[in-house]
Amino acid sequence: MQKNRVGLIGSGSWATAMIKMLGDNVVEKDIHWWVRKQEDVDYIKKHKKNPSYLSAVEVKLDTDHISTNAREVIQVSNIIILNTPAAYLKAALKDVTKADLEGKIIVSAIKGIVPDENLIIGDYLQEVYDVSLENILVVGGPCHAEEVSLEKLSYLTFGSKSEENAKLVASLLECRYIKTIISDDVYGIEYGAVLKNIYALAGGICHSLGYGDNFQAVLISNAIREMETYVETIDPNPLRDINKSAYLGDLLVTAYSQFSRNRTFGAMIGKGYSVQSAQLEMNMVAEGYYASACIQHYMRKHQIALPICEAVYQILYQHKSAATIISQLAEKLS
Amino acid sequence: MQKNRVGLIGSGSWATAMIKMLGDNVVEKDIHWWVRKQEDVDYIKKHKKNPSYLSAVEVKLDTDHISTNAREVIQVSNIIILNTPAAYLKAALKDVTKADLEGKIIVSAIKGIVPDENLIIGDYLQEVYDVSLENILVVGGPCHAEEVSLEKLSYLTFGSKSEENAKLVASLLECRYIKTIISDDVYGIEYGAVLKNIYALAGGICHSLGYGDNFQAVLISNAIREMETYVETIDPNPLRDINKSAYLGDLLVTAYSQFSRNRTFGAMIGKGYSVQSAQLEMNMVAEGYYASACIQHYMRKHQIALPICEAVYQILYQHKSAATIISQLAEKLS
Repeated sequence: MQKNRVGLIGSGSWATAMIKMLGDNVVEKDIHWWVRKQEDVDYIKKHKKNPSYLSAVEVKLDTDHISTNAREVIQVSNIIILNTPAAYLKAALKDVTKADLEGKIIVSAIKGIVPDENLIIGDYLQEVYDVSLENILVVGGPCHAEEVSLEKLSYLTFGSKSEENAKLVASLLECRYIKTIISDDVYGIEYGAVLKNIYALAGGICHSLGYGDNFQAVLISNAIREMETYVETIDPNPLRDINKSAYLGDLLVTAYSQFSRNRTFGAMIGKGYSVQSAQLEMNMVAEGYYASACIQHYMRKHQIALPICEAVYQILYQHKSAATIISQLAEKLS
Repeated sequence: MQKNRVGLIGSGSWATAMIKMLGDNVVEKDIHWWVRKQEDVDYIKKHKKNPSYLSAVEVKLDTDHISTNAREVIQVSNIIILNTPAAYLKAALKDVTKADLEGKIIVSAIKGIVPDENLIIGDYLQEVYDVSLENILVVGGPCHAEEVSLEKLSYLTFGSKSEENAKLVASLLECRYIKTIISDDVYGIEYGAVLKNIYALAGGICHSLGYGDNFQAVLISNAIREMETYVETIDPNPLRDINKSAYLGDLLVTAYSQFSRNRTFGAMIGKGYSVQSAQLEMNMVAEGYYASACIQHYMRKHQIALPICEAVYQILYQHKSAATIISQLAEKLS
């Protein structure tokens, strides 16, 4: 049997954490890595470290397999892991054709929405690249990349309609500090990962407005019920347990993290920053900002009432007073 | 209609928070308060503050209604709120007879087990005092007393088989910063509050052993599923949603609090303290310690497998190595 050739697209902290897992995993395989900037490629080839993210992680792969050409990386690989920020996926794949992805396993490790398209990654791959649902695989957390770099025990969920594909990809990433879980819930895992950023953002807003830990716990308890309502509407599945790690666990690690960018973004909004000022100040865009517009679109389309998501949307996009909206939200929580 | 006479038994921080709610609630009523020590009664009468707990809270009641005689407080009241530490309930009620409680609404704001009896408060009241299930009411969180004293918005759930009783008691405690939720789930709320202390203790153990936030999120995601398994076995109810505030919210506020005594106790165990040394060092007993023995009893009786509770029991009562047991537990989490 031919060795698997894994092509990783992206070089942020989560991608670098995956390079570490792939390197520490003991199954024989070829690893190909797309890194956007030539200067980073040069640095990595020389020092075996990513200069920009998780810079203590030792990069274990044939450095000839590192390239700034995403199409080349994809063409030589049979398993493609997409791991850029969602906002940069289009740019990363700009030269890639449907034929380049045909018949390959396409793994999304991206937690977010393709901006302007209102599409989760799985839908984007199906609509734009004709990837079959069978060949799409999503990776769910909870998993802060920083903890992977410290080899803290973490659990990843691999979701695919093909159990065989899910098991194969899991077998290439599991290692001493990474346990793997198999699931068939492609949509639930991906939408859960998108929604959790909105809830973390809401938590940040409430924190800045002076709400305490008692309220945060109620907020998150409502958030997971909202998440269940949403995914059960979009993709009904009586066997789904929303309290599994990939849903509730992922929500918790994000919402209770002091380092979550979405929470920080929300905290700035709660303090009275405008969306633009918060983005400028943070020098980045929080995924939850795009997620909010996307989920609002689907809430309307499917006529789903999600009070927390609605509140975040009104604050971010309709510029309503955060204090007023959260005070109204508090009346709806239970 | 006669005014309601509320008798509050206990003067710790949670009881003092309830005195504040009762005082800020606008419904006319008499409030009677049992405070254990005469010197505290004297201080409260003079300064309208509890010298020992939440000492900034203004005590708003007729100070002639404060007494060190629990039986007197109970005899003059038609609604009794029990709010001592579980370990001190027997001592507090030592002179109280079945007749004293007959026909009254007995509210448990205690989150724990009566030591030596392996009974939750609701069962203890039924077995020892012949209180009817209809007249028992439990109060669920999430609610740190400290946040009540700061008037941070919080939600309390009132559980009773009698909706009328639940609504009545809720109407006497709701106020500007306390929202109330009605439930009929007496057993689920009480067992949930007991179990959450075990899970917070487990979280503390894991933290001390070096497990990170990714793992904690997986632990809590497994914990809420365990809680559901347990309460559905003890008291099946297809309408119960374990993600409501009184269950998941209460678990979150405890497990993610740095101030939780159960978490601190677990952290000391994880660092290698014996149970006795940890108790000495903390100068108190964590509720989760008693809860562990009680739940173990019921797990065996009903043949329920709860891996996290089992692990905590083996560490606390069978003196097994925390590192070994948690490492084995990690294999069972999903």
